[in-house]
Amino acid sequence: MPKRTTLGEHLDGERFWSDLMDQARIGALAGGGLRRLTLGEADNRARLWLMEKGEALDCSAHYDALGNVFLRREGQNPSLPPLLIGSHLDSQPSAGVYDGALGVVAGLAVLRTLSEQQVAHQRPVEVVSWTNEEGARFAPGASGSSWFAGRRDAETILAAQDDDGIAFKEALTECLALLDAHGAHFRSTSVVPHTFLELHIEQGPVLEAQGAPACVVTGIQGVYWYEVEVNGQANHAGTTPEASRHDAFMGAHALIGALKAAVAAHDDQVRFTIGKFALAPNSVNTIAQQARFTIDLRHPDPAVLDALDGAFRQLAKREWSSCTVHLEATSRVAPVAFDEHLIDALDEAVKAYCPQAPKLVSGAFHDAIHLAHLCPTAMLFTACRAGISHHPDEHIERGDADVAVRALAHAAGQLLTTRKD
Amino acid sequence: MPKRTTLGEHLDGERFWSDLMDQARIGALAGGGLRRLTLGEADNRARLWLMEKGEALDCSAHYDALGNVFLRREGQNPSLPPLLIGSHLDSQPSAGVYDGALGVVAGLAVLRTLSEQQVAHQRPVEVVSWTNEEGARFAPGASGSSWFAGRRDAETILAAQDDDGIAFKEALTECLALLDAHGAHFRSTSVVPHTFLELHIEQGPVLEAQGAPACVVTGIQGVYWYEVEVNGQANHAGTTPEASRHDAFMGAHALIGALKAAVAAHDDQVRFTIGKFALAPNSVNTIAQQARFTIDLRHPDPAVLDALDGAFRQLAKREWSSCTVHLEATSRVAPVAFDEHLIDALDEAVKAYCPQAPKLVSGAFHDAIHLAHLCPTAMLFTACRAGISHHPDEHIERGDADVAVRALAHAAGQLLTTRKD
Repeated sequence: MPKRTTLGEHLDGERFWSDLMDQARIGALAGGGLRRLTLGEADNRARLWLMEKGEALDCSAHYDALGNVFLRREGQNPSLPPLLIGSHLDSQPSAGVYDGALGVVAGLAVLRTLSEQQVAHQRPVEVVSWTNEEGARFAPGASGSSWFAGRRDAETILAAQDDDGIAFKEALTECLALLDAHGAHFRSTSVVPHTFLELHIEQGPVLEAQGAPACVVTGIQGVYWYEVEVNGQANHAGTTPEASRHDAFMGAHALIGALKAAVAAHDDQVRFTIGKFALAPNSVNTIAQQARFTIDLRHPDPAVLDALDGAFRQLAKREWSSCTVHLEATSRVAPVAFDEHLIDALDEAVKAYCPQAPKLVSGAFHDAIHLAHLCPTAMLFTACRAGISHHPDEHIERGDADVAVRALAHAAGQLLTTRKD
Repeated sequence: MPKRTTLGEHLDGERFWSDLMDQARIGALAGGGLRRLTLGEADNRARLWLMEKGEALDCSAHYDALGNVFLRREGQNPSLPPLLIGSHLDSQPSAGVYDGALGVVAGLAVLRTLSEQQVAHQRPVEVVSWTNEEGARFAPGASGSSWFAGRRDAETILAAQDDDGIAFKEALTECLALLDAHGAHFRSTSVVPHTFLELHIEQGPVLEAQGAPACVVTGIQGVYWYEVEVNGQANHAGTTPEASRHDAFMGAHALIGALKAAVAAHDDQVRFTIGKFALAPNSVNTIAQQARFTIDLRHPDPAVLDALDGAFRQLAKREWSSCTVHLEATSRVAPVAFDEHLIDALDEAVKAYCPQAPKLVSGAFHDAIHLAHLCPTAMLFTACRAGISHHPDEHIERGDADVAVRALAHAAGQLLTTRKD
């Protein structure tokens, strides 16, 4: 068995990068980036690609009722809960090649290192690719991981339809048949992993700005989504005096000013975004009848989210520019704090390569947000250029990814040698 | 010849109202209101309807190169410039039955009263229906009146196309052939009227709120239109810290706050409307890359409009929430002040029926805005319910319209007896 510090050092960085570039060809777009909508043809090919890679490492391939794919390297004690490493292979419609795939390929690199170094370990090690993390074809996302962690029921997930009216269930049935035909084993019983580790690109600008290639992630911000309707009265822009107006745009403007003030009363970790906004009838010389907009509100502390939730609801009870307001919470995901021991282990692993690495809270969702409710979970981030993701321009530096994958292997090696329960 | 005060009193209110209801059947919508897009089948039928009405009163029918239709009651001195009365018979796609038609039918009622009372007058009296006031099928509107007044050239007007790719010129050619086939005389020479009078619904709530059936209009507000682009950078709503954001929505919000403050520094006659607003990419969890919105700015005083124009341009030079701004003036129509003597004459005529009538500035465009550059011009408004127009719910009270049409006849009679130049 290697020493605690060596699994990362033994990792074959060339092979890791060539695997990463290899998967990037599956669903590649002509101008760069890729398109691998969940359970589509390219996404299914990516599953088979992963299975092939696992077979070459003498791992068995498994899938479950949601199409999550697992590569299993057996442990000396097969009955122990596995160390689980992974992320997702599906993508947004016009995506970069790293978001999701990096974490799966990194898991593969850990399996390969264990295999090449002939590491004996008590507990099994599994690499997973979760189904439909992105939610781009079937909303909402993280279907596979949320179901696996018992956070959502399969029926609701299977009923979702894509824009062409194809049901999740229909696409999934094809996928499962394909996996079966290629020799993957169906796993009907639930598995509670010992640990879940996920490496992902940051999708934000902080690591790049700090010159850090990678870091441990201590948790995931909570996210509350709202849809707000401001209802006024359409009227002629020229003939309606100020005092007679029920201008839904001006009502929305005033309300948003108050929402911003409520946000400003908290710390600078609040993320407050109005990303969708529409007016009706949307005509240059007609006063708006209705304004509709969304709010995306995030913070790592549930108390702050709940305080703002209360403030928003109070503000929505008032009239703004003689318009009424209807505010509806459309989604509430509580913040998750990752396992403290795992955070320490990953932080130590990263700092073996990058002593100045910070600790970040993730601003984006990841499959780990659900796994954290099932087993000790933590994440690593690697830096990405200008925080760009969900776009073919998404870019990471090879040297940064190298640090991140070695830190992951380092931590995995440490967990396999020190945690034997 | 009747006394100055009697032409309005002699007017046949029953017949006026039945004519108004009669025209409302041309292009009527099943659920109420009408659809008479300019130069379409219903609009052309409305022209023929008007010609028939004129023939029954021994008026000759004329049309010009833009399809404007004139009914002429000859004067004792045919070489004198005519007293011109009218408005338009075309409509918005889903319109009320009064916007435009009221002013044409009112002119017809004046012709009928002159005929029934066998009034002899020196100058001819003409009633006009202008082509394409609404601009709903071919933008911009007021084609017939602006060309007639020498404010726009025919070539540009004729080149406009509707949503089906049909050119104004093509639709107009059919219309002119139809008018010719029905015996209207083509008028190739330009005519400068002695006076233009237009009765129109207010399209605003002021008269109704004041309990006044009608009033004189002293001018038309100037209207400046702008398109504003705020350019930021799309990014992830969860992962992008406040300090790294170039949030185009927040930039627009801050800029609009400053625009509102600039407006508030002027009197309460300013009309400031943001009726169109759009975000790109318009996604709940993506910081907006771009916000685009329109401004509709109106005031009766050109100095105020120009001061605000300067202020808006200054504000657009600054960055707002780390976003740049591009502001473009897309239309500038200067305010028009109507002829003072005509205002007095119409005011006196209205006050014969309604002593408490106010004087209003029109917030909407009308054909009169162009005629005012050609000859002494003024308007009357009649009250409309809740200021609603451009909608089948548009409504006027019969009693209010009766006052307005009698005031128009009163003023016409007075002009015919006192102005003999």
